[in-house]
Amino acid sequence: MADAASLGRRVAAEGVGAFFLFACVIGSGIMAQALAGGNNGVALLANTIATGAILFVLITMLGPISGAHFNPAVTLVAAMRRDLPWLDAAAYLAAQFALGIAGAWAAHLMFDLPTIQFSAKVRTGLGQWAGEFIATFGLVMTILGTVRHKPQAVAASVALYIMAAYWFTSSTSFANPAITVARSLSDTFAGIAPHDVPAFLAAQIAGAIVASRVAALLFRPSS
Amino acid sequence: MADAASLGRRVAAEGVGAFFLFACVIGSGIMAQALAGGNNGVALLANTIATGAILFVLITMLGPISGAHFNPAVTLVAAMRRDLPWLDAAAYLAAQFALGIAGAWAAHLMFDLPTIQFSAKVRTGLGQWAGEFIATFGLVMTILGTVRHKPQAVAASVALYIMAAYWFTSSTSFANPAITVARSLSDTFAGIAPHDVPAFLAAQIAGAIVASRVAALLFRPSS
Amino acid sequence: MADAASLGRRVAAEGVGAFFLFACVIGSGIMAQALAGGNNGVALLANTIATGAILFVLITMLGPISGAHFNPAVTLVAAMRRDLPWLDAAAYLAAQFALGIAGAWAAHLMFDLPTIQFSAKVRTGLGQWAGEFIATFGLVMTILGTVRHKPQAVAASVALYIMAAYWFTSSTSFANPAITVARSLSDTFAGIAPHDVPAFLAAQIAGAIVASRVAALLFRPSS
Amino acid sequence: MADAASLGRRVAAEGVGAFFLFACVIGSGIMAQALAGGNNGVALLANTIATGAILFVLITMLGPISGAHFNPAVTLVAAMRRDLPWLDAAAYLAAQFALGIAGAWAAHLMFDLPTIQFSAKVRTGLGQWAGEFIATFGLVMTILGTVRHKPQAVAASVALYIMAAYWFTSSTSFANPAITVARSLSDTFAGIAPHDVPAFLAAQIAGAIVASRVAALLFRPSS
Repeated sequence: MADAASLGRRVAAEGVGAFFLFACVIGSGIMAQALAGGNNGVALLANTIATGAILFVLITMLGPISGAHFNPAVTLVAAMRRDLPWLDAAAYLAAQFALGIAGAWAAHLMFDLPTIQFSAKVRTGLGQWAGEFIATFGLVMTILGTVRHKPQAVAASVALYIMAAYWFTSSTSFANPAITVARSLSDTFAGIAPHDVPAFLAAQIAGAIVASRVAALLFRPSS
Repeated sequence: MADAASLGRRVAAEGVGAFFLFACVIGSGIMAQALAGGNNGVALLANTIATGAILFVLITMLGPISGAHFNPAVTLVAAMRRDLPWLDAAAYLAAQFALGIAGAWAAHLMFDLPTIQFSAKVRTGLGQWAGEFIATFGLVMTILGTVRHKPQAVAASVALYIMAAYWFTSSTSFANPAITVARSLSDTFAGIAPHDVPAFLAAQIAGAIVASRVAALLFRPSS
Repeated sequence: MADAASLGRRVAAEGVGAFFLFACVIGSGIMAQALAGGNNGVALLANTIATGAILFVLITMLGPISGAHFNPAVTLVAAMRRDLPWLDAAAYLAAQFALGIAGAWAAHLMFDLPTIQFSAKVRTGLGQWAGEFIATFGLVMTILGTVRHKPQAVAASVALYIMAAYWFTSSTSFANPAITVARSLSDTFAGIAPHDVPAFLAAQIAGAIVASRVAALLFRPSS
Repeated sequence: MADAASLGRRVAAEGVGAFFLFACVIGSGIMAQALAGGNNGVALLANTIATGAILFVLITMLGPISGAHFNPAVTLVAAMRRDLPWLDAAAYLAAQFALGIAGAWAAHLMFDLPTIQFSAKVRTGLGQWAGEFIATFGLVMTILGTVRHKPQAVAASVALYIMAAYWFTSSTSFANPAITVARSLSDTFAGIAPHDVPAFLAAQIAGAIVASRVAALLFRPSS
């Protein structure tokens, strides 16, 4: 389906999607923390519901144009599987990072916070790296398996997968290199300290690549 | 689809929808605040779930009759795109405002509150206006993009979009001029002071018009 | 579809559905109150999610057999519209009341409470009666409108309607004469004092009958 | 559908599913308890949403390969109904237990907890055994009824059924012998003391077998 739209429109769709997704993850985190009266369980529940909801909406609306990656790990897997030319993938990544960071800044604007910030929230350690590996592994498995067997359920499945992973991983499942960078630029509920970013990215990319290999075995046509 | 029903039935559908939608937004806010023991995170979660749920129901039930706008910004965009004659649009607006305000008053009746009230809740400032612009921009993009690519998902997408936007905007996403007016007539959880209404309306209408232009580019047929 | 199954199987389906629905409404109320640490907002959220979830499941599973009423007000409307013979309707009602009350008692068994109880929770007044009228009106409109326009969405729509109505009515939306009686037999979170039952039943039946008339006008074929 | 995939791929699918399901149930319980500030209602809400979400994802993704049991009680019923050869069923069970326990240990790894643990949480008594019987009875009814009447809704129905049953049973509805064993190996929110496991297994298997018989009557073809 992605081939039917010009590269410009596809890249625009990736940008619009990353903008709203990242604005939602960060903005709903700010709102949730402000309202939850110190109960981080209530705050993460709100963050979870907002994130899952916007993912369903964006994948449904923009998937028919660009494939609705909004995530460099997903774009990387698509390029490795030759579902997407490498040059197109580079353009996707540029849009995801640039408009995604703009989304983070839009959240700051909406909540009257300084635009430029760096997070001080420490997120590190073997447990969290294992969490990012497993979270991204599961996300890529979900996408490849559901596209293969039940493409009309991809939007619901990705949204619900992330909602679950917010809770079953100790890192709350970033599972997306671009949002990891954007969240390092926001000293709010969803933030991550910049020096903790590289290890998260490595775990995410490793999880995505392993999932791509496993999916090729598990979801291959059985003819 | 809207053309198949007479204008009278379509306007009645807009009225029934606005009545239940606005009664639900305001009524669930009253109930949520009464039960949440001072935790506004819990209260907004309940308000979010109730609003998203009724939106899915009303769009599914009434969409085949009137298009299920319940929102003057959406009706305005439909008229600008010539999907709806301007005279029909005027009748839609009248029903949305009149029955929507009746819905607010029905909520007051159900909760034993005085019918006629004016909200004292201040909602103002650049951040909240940016929030209303972005919220309404995203709502109209969601409607036009989903109608174009996946019409059977419009009810779920609009419901989930509003659920997300309740959290990622600092204004909790009114995104609807008629509900903004109705909420100014309710001095409860969902209220807005009357003198803060005009700026909200301006931001909403601006967001809707810009979205209509962007959607025309992004979602155009690729033939 | 209901005609394809024998009356015995249809009545059994109504009984199984009422058993699980009422056990879930009452049981999840007990659990929610026990865990919510005095925050009734959290308790009603849990009660809402459990009720909506089981409604979707039961209507999906049993709807193809009996129509999945589980509600005398719905059965009454079906009989008035001649969608169901009056004798079948009487058998439906018997199953709804008998197995529904058994469901309430099963909840008591599961939570180690005395089987036979009477609620002491006062639920009365014009606001709550208006709430029951509006709640049942909306439920019957939802069913008739969705069956007419989008039958595959009935399970989701009814579940989500009740989830919304738990919050936008002051009575938390019983909207079902059989569950009202069953809840009068449970001195727990979801209970209602027996002497408050008759007024609830009257409001529910009035709302259902008015909805049936309005739906006949609004959802009539437009040919 | 299950027959189209080789036994190896089907068993792998059962293992991947049990790994993620059990990691999610246990991991989200740990996260929920850590964040909920002592409010177990908030904690169970989070646990409920994470569990329901991952169930929908895993059944959608893996159902077309193996049938997506992830549950020895379901596999047992399939073998008794001759939908699955007994030798295949034995391989399914081995994968469910082995990879499911690995999922529990992965949760411990992610949350920096000791791998090997035994739960000290007492879960016993007639009420909880009745709960496990009713919970598993309802789960098997849901699966068999929905497969029969509306197979495309199985993923949503099973996910929502478990979400409801977490709240309407006093045991929070394990309803799965393999997850009961895995949860006995985790001294966390979702745990169960090992000596309480046998009675839970007996109640689950009894509920599953009775449901299989009732479903054969209620959901039989009406031709």
